[in-house]
Amino acid sequence: MNKDYKFVDQAIEELLPKVKEAGFDTVWDRFKSMQPQCGFGELGVCCRICWKGPCRIDPFGNGPQRGICGADAHTIVARNLIRGIAAGAAAHSDHGRHIALTLLEVAEGHAPAYCIKDEKKLMNVAARLGLSTEGKNVRQVAKEVALATLEDFSRQNSSIPCSWARQTITAERAEKLTALGVMPHNIDAVVAGIMNRTHVGCDADPVNLLLGGLKGALADYTGMYLSTELSDVIFGTPEPVITTANLGVLKEDAVNIAVHGHNPLLSEIICDVAGSMDEEARQAGAKEGINIVGVCCTGNEVMARRGIPLATNYLSQEMAVLTGAVDAMVVDVQCIMPSLGVLQECYHTQLITTMATNKIPGAVHVEFTEKTALEDARRVVELAIEAYKRRDKNKINIPQYKETAIVGFSAEAVFAALSKLNKEDPLKPLLDNIVNGNIQGVALFAGCSTTRVAQDHNFVTIARELARHNVLLLATGCGAGAFAKLGLMTQEATEAYAGDSLKAVLTAVGEAAGLNGPLPLVLHMGSCVDNTRAVTVATALANKLGVDLDKLPVVASAPEAMSEKAVAIGTWAVTLGIPTHLGIIPQVTGSSLVTEVLTDKLKDLVGGYFIVETDPLRAAGKLYEVIRERRKALGI
Amino acid sequence: MNKDYKFVDQAIEELLPKVKEAGFDTVWDRFKSMQPQCGFGELGVCCRICWKGPCRIDPFGNGPQRGICGADAHTIVARNLIRGIAAGAAAHSDHGRHIALTLLEVAEGHAPAYCIKDEKKLMNVAARLGLSTEGKNVRQVAKEVALATLEDFSRQNSSIPCSWARQTITAERAEKLTALGVMPHNIDAVVAGIMNRTHVGCDADPVNLLLGGLKGALADYTGMYLSTELSDVIFGTPEPVITTANLGVLKEDAVNIAVHGHNPLLSEIICDVAGSMDEEARQAGAKEGINIVGVCCTGNEVMARRGIPLATNYLSQEMAVLTGAVDAMVVDVQCIMPSLGVLQECYHTQLITTMATNKIPGAVHVEFTEKTALEDARRVVELAIEAYKRRDKNKINIPQYKETAIVGFSAEAVFAALSKLNKEDPLKPLLDNIVNGNIQGVALFAGCSTTRVAQDHNFVTIARELARHNVLLLATGCGAGAFAKLGLMTQEATEAYAGDSLKAVLTAVGEAAGLNGPLPLVLHMGSCVDNTRAVTVATALANKLGVDLDKLPVVASAPEAMSEKAVAIGTWAVTLGIPTHLGIIPQVTGSSLVTEVLTDKLKDLVGGYFIVETDPLRAAGKLYEVIRERRKALGI
Repeated sequence: MNKDYKFVDQAIEELLPKVKEAGFDTVWDRFKSMQPQCGFGELGVCCRICWKGPCRIDPFGNGPQRGICGADAHTIVARNLIRGIAAGAAAHSDHGRHIALTLLEVAEGHAPAYCIKDEKKLMNVAARLGLSTEGKNVRQVAKEVALATLEDFSRQNSSIPCSWARQTITAERAEKLTALGVMPHNIDAVVAGIMNRTHVGCDADPVNLLLGGLKGALADYTGMYLSTELSDVIFGTPEPVITTANLGVLKEDAVNIAVHGHNPLLSEIICDVAGSMDEEARQAGAKEGINIVGVCCTGNEVMARRGIPLATNYLSQEMAVLTGAVDAMVVDVQCIMPSLGVLQECYHTQLITTMATNKIPGAVHVEFTEKTALEDARRVVELAIEAYKRRDKNKINIPQYKETAIVGFSAEAVFAALSKLNKEDPLKPLLDNIVNGNIQGVALFAGCSTTRVAQDHNFVTIARELARHNVLLLATGCGAGAFAKLGLMTQEATEAYAGDSLKAVLTAVGEAAGLNGPLPLVLHMGSCVDNTRAVTVATALANKLGVDLDKLPVVASAPEAMSEKAVAIGTWAVTLGIPTHLGIIPQVTGSSLVTEVLTDKLKDLVGGYFIVETDPLRAAGKLYEVIRERRKALGI
Repeated sequence: MNKDYKFVDQAIEELLPKVKEAGFDTVWDRFKSMQPQCGFGELGVCCRICWKGPCRIDPFGNGPQRGICGADAHTIVARNLIRGIAAGAAAHSDHGRHIALTLLEVAEGHAPAYCIKDEKKLMNVAARLGLSTEGKNVRQVAKEVALATLEDFSRQNSSIPCSWARQTITAERAEKLTALGVMPHNIDAVVAGIMNRTHVGCDADPVNLLLGGLKGALADYTGMYLSTELSDVIFGTPEPVITTANLGVLKEDAVNIAVHGHNPLLSEIICDVAGSMDEEARQAGAKEGINIVGVCCTGNEVMARRGIPLATNYLSQEMAVLTGAVDAMVVDVQCIMPSLGVLQECYHTQLITTMATNKIPGAVHVEFTEKTALEDARRVVELAIEAYKRRDKNKINIPQYKETAIVGFSAEAVFAALSKLNKEDPLKPLLDNIVNGNIQGVALFAGCSTTRVAQDHNFVTIARELARHNVLLLATGCGAGAFAKLGLMTQEATEAYAGDSLKAVLTAVGEAAGLNGPLPLVLHMGSCVDNTRAVTVATALANKLGVDLDKLPVVASAPEAMSEKAVAIGTWAVTLGIPTHLGIIPQVTGSSLVTEVLTDKLKDLVGGYFIVETDPLRAAGKLYEVIRERRKALGI
């Protein structure tokens, strides 16, 4: 293993050389051996949409400027981009549909492992969807909410927008997006519509295609929003909880089960049953019983709701197995490296897939269904205990790094904390502090980790710099994972890195909320599907301030983005009016037109736009500048 | 322009050198300048699914064998393939949804330009969908059919199969496909499901992915079937009609309007209004008034239903404009070359786009809606007449090639022709002749034309060879276009190329049907979305014979395929049990596993499989051999 990075994450720094000895290739080795990567693909000018191709546009102008069908670079780049958005929307929203269907089963009494943990949220959701709850019991309301939600996947009248999109943004924004023709009416139909319009010989107008992409991104938003909210209904809305993060959370004397993927439907039940199986683990020799840890966004889900420790985030998922101490890695959907299947050959870790449409060669498959959730979860734990018995103690290398992380800042939790300062009007303290400049603005960190950037480095660098400028920091997904692992979700980080006025606000709120100190420097808002939590806060602020979302001093950053879900999220953030930073070069630069629309022209259209900057300090500077601009425009 | 092909189509042979003088690049020039094409893409081993990539697997085994995430060639190839299937399914079924929504509007009285032209078919469709028609008027039935159809796009219960899939195949096949888990429940959800499971870090099991592809292909089938049947309800079911085909159908002294694309919703109305505007065209100087001609599958639609002449098929669409005689090219969706927009710069032809999600730079956009269909169609014709006035007579070069084509063989038309021989049991004569060997089998030609093959050559060569062996030939889409242009849809072709026993049967049926001679050598079944018409015939035969579809001596061939729709069609044909020939190398050969599944293993699973053979004579031999094998297995 050769690597050129210096990792911010010391656990990786320590473990990697040992992996090299073991002769195993990691994601960074594969990245290196893939160099040089195809420049056509990186520019977005490679078209494989029909089998006359592949076609490639010569970026230097000497070779072909049009594909065989006549599509030029702008058309090709736009098509490739919006297909990615469609995939992202499909991934998030299929996850959301799964939750909605489970809610329906709960309501109908067919999913005994689940219940409605947050009835208050259910009622709030029902009200937001315009459903009357009067005289109805919880199950009736749950059923109506589930069915209304499924309408957003099935409506055939394209003039009626998705409820979950329409009801969760400012009225002004909804009107603007409707006028632009980008409000989705049906998530699946919008995804299929993108696949249709990008078929050979269909939409060739890059701007029209990009507008289709905005619609696809809003379909993604819709699927994410409903996913988060209904997960809260079933599993409870996160509240602040103190836990730990990084590979040091693995225990040498426990059966370590890593839950990895995205959907809480399985991982929650594993957490439910694990306690009752502790004794079996001890009988197998694990003195500390069962230790569940999270990886990637399943990790964020159970961390936020249950305080389950987080082992690591996306890019370093292999490292968890390479500690030799993970007995089972249980995965559901999204961002699971197929290489985990190969690791089975060298490590005892039992990889367990659980979803019918997400299998991995080398894994054992335990088909998970809501109806049999308890048995499925027990089977998973049994497999972990069996695997524990096969452990090779010589291969165990748990880097002793872990950090405290205060996590679980749902929108409701943020409002609840603020209500300690002003019970009648919880938003007032936040708004006042933004207006008076104690808080300069808000930055949401989201997105993945990628081999194109030294893992976690961009997140940490930008966050520290913005905090110094008194910007309130929120994070989700693998960004949140980075901050948790690296100690930026602690009170100490607030003391160390927050600017004075931000520190004062975080301390006031933290003290009032009973934390005996400030809120952590970065507020953990959940998994990547939970980015909509930030929109809940932003929309509340915008409504209170009487402005649209694109006037707020709110920015987003995906400094290490790589997945199609991230492309979709970034695009809806921009579409909702939020300037969004990318710390990697998006694969669109083969088209000057698409690049210009995304980084500039969209500003006039929707207020948001992409800021591309690979240098994290410069990126922080640009984001702060945007915040200053927005403040100036608001006259604050 | 350099070309290495000798075109079977003399119109192209004649016109191309003149294009060279004009200095315009055609699709063949762009193909040449794109050489060499990317070998990674051709093998299917290039992955651009996330922005850690692009990744490429080294087919020679020296370089990377896994992508950065760990996906190997099998996973990458399978993912790329099924994304193509998803796009094909999305394209066909969005077209189908458009028709279903229009039927709903007709039923509700909101689409004055449309009516129910084939009430009998409507009643048959209703019965097939299990809807009672008793005591209901046509509009009520139409509404129920439309709503039942839209269920196939919106159903959220994944255990209930799409009605249009379940009701149109043999019971045995439906059972088999249900057991395999590949029956679609909701077209859009299945398309989105494929995009989801192919997202980074999701399904990595190539066989599981391919099964997802079969399901996607059956979603494509569902969308195609309903599209065809409901189009027949609204516009009438095709019956045999004699017309002409090839560029010679353009008239120097007429306002030539080429209708191009796929969906009959607009082109039918243009045909409706054109007659009433003939006088305006004459006043503009066009002695012969308005001349509507078809291109690609819109061409097939209006040719089959109205006998509108066909100018040309997919690959040579530019040639129509390059005659200098097309005044307007009106396009809707799919397979429209963006290069037509560039041609606007050199030729007077007015390119008119009509669908909000299918625009082309350089075109005038006349937004088409069902509510305003008549005005929209009139506007299109007006634009054509205006363009006619701008014609440059020096640029006119209409190759004087056209052939008679007897077209319009819907399943109903086939049954009607057969009923002249046996009114009580129309299928009996066909079945008897198959059993006694006068007809050895049936071959369906489908799919596109592509630069990878000398246009039309494979179609014609294979058809002649199979006809000689007494195989009954059916054709759709650009294959049908090739046969129409090249005189294989004539009685003379039957005389010239059919084997004796086939000739005798075609003559007996043709005479009985009042054609004063044999049926044409190749039966024109419609546009590419109409491939399901052949399934209607095959399912009727299978049911009568009491066997499943995979026992019939029926084969399919897509000898010049290129579009994702063709990939989807080929895959459902195979899934329904029909051995399907590809005359191009599918972009999957970078995975031995995927290649083996598609060309071999699928045979055990579903009965159908792909036969890849680029030599057309050898392909004909292989197809005939399959037919002989199937006959032998049936004991006939």
